[in-house]
Amino acid sequence: MRVSVDLLPDADAVAGATVVVVDVLRMTTTATVLADLGLVHLAVVADVERAHARARADGALLLGERGTRPLPGFDGGNSPAEFSAAQVRGRAAVMCTSNGSAAVEACAAAEHLLLGCLRNGEAVARRALDLTRGHIRVVCAGTAGRLSLDDVAGAGHIVAMLAAMAPEVEFDDTALTARATAGGHIPGLLAASRHGRTLFAAGFADDLLLAAQRDVSPGVMERVAGSRDAFRPMRP
Amino acid sequence: MRVSVDLLPDADAVAGATVVVVDVLRMTTTATVLADLGLVHLAVVADVERAHARARADGALLLGERGTRPLPGFDGGNSPAEFSAAQVRGRAAVMCTSNGSAAVEACAAAEHLLLGCLRNGEAVARRALDLTRGHIRVVCAGTAGRLSLDDVAGAGHIVAMLAAMAPEVEFDDTALTARATAGGHIPGLLAASRHGRTLFAAGFADDLLLAAQRDVSPGVMERVAGSRDAFRPMRP
Repeated sequence: MRVSVDLLPDADAVAGATVVVVDVLRMTTTATVLADLGLVHLAVVADVERAHARARADGALLLGERGTRPLPGFDGGNSPAEFSAAQVRGRAAVMCTSNGSAAVEACAAAEHLLLGCLRNGEAVARRALDLTRGHIRVVCAGTAGRLSLDDVAGAGHIVAMLAAMAPEVEFDDTALTARATAGGHIPGLLAASRHGRTLFAAGFADDLLLAAQRDVSPGVMERVAGSRDAFRPMRP
Repeated sequence: MRVSVDLLPDADAVAGATVVVVDVLRMTTTATVLADLGLVHLAVVADVERAHARARADGALLLGERGTRPLPGFDGGNSPAEFSAAQVRGRAAVMCTSNGSAAVEACAAAEHLLLGCLRNGEAVARRALDLTRGHIRVVCAGTAGRLSLDDVAGAGHIVAMLAAMAPEVEFDDTALTARATAGGHIPGLLAASRHGRTLFAAGFADDLLLAAQRDVSPGVMERVAGSRDAFRPMRP
């Protein structure tokens, strides 16, 4: 089997693959925390108008950001530190963020679609291997069309977990690059990254600490079979 | 000042910058070894016909490869292990290779153009800082338009040297990614890379060992002022 990493989403490349979308700062980290807190359904919608409509239709919490902050009419932002179980247990949510939601939409042609991050690296690797022994693509969301170091580190950690669980895997050079990156000091990498500095300056230092933790979350948001954008939590 | 890394050549991005082209396996490594051995002039030409013509015009050795091996009529290949001082001291050469020569041509709009690798990481970083306190771009040659792990590791080592020499530098996320990659075990990374495996299978294991050595070469091939493709060795 093969594991490759895309440093930015490539809609054509993911067709038929088992795909793990990674947006460490912060969308897939927040989605993973929401799964841990008991959220039962998540729709990922990039367009703000459609996200509003979807949240109304689903009776769902509307969460997300533009420029790090929730928009007017949103029920919450995109910070993994801001949610409590009381707020989300048993609920549905719609997430509408700047980069992560667009990356998820760009990967619509995947056969299986999982949301991965450092927090659920081990769990998402296990789930991906449950789903396929063919081709796993780990797709970095990036930031505004550019490589984002936090995503590369997250992808690299997931690659390292896959390598540990399935030693016969073939990795492409981008996967090996990401894995080597993840061998560094993760909190330091996130703090040095462009987006990490932006979040720190905006008062979200706690998010960096939460996002840097590895393998503390058992939950994985996985796209519902037959749906384009609806996810539910799995515990592989 | 700023340091950025391009994972593939981007002709538009390099205009006016001080650029270090990196093709660890093997063009810029071989060029660096040729500088150490006493080559006095190097023309980098991607097209085979033009390379032949240029070598005739310059009375130069014609070196390079297609598919890892020298073409008919070439005086030598692209292996850093194959040359001796007796063969190259005081001579001129033309290098015509699959990826590195095309990367050098793609960077023609750079203000200053240097050939970097792991072997001359410290020297090329020092020379780049002598030339500018503005913007240094480290450009990976890649392999057939795809990221090549050996080049990322080389770029990362050069970034690490720049960081040590000029702590006030701002690095983009790609530079930080490359630097984190270079913190790993370099010979292992080269051996695991796609192109490294190709070279190993073709009998060039020595080239991997030579290419993995860091900071053993004092020489840097630098483009001659006013020329598009002519380089001479510098010792910063």
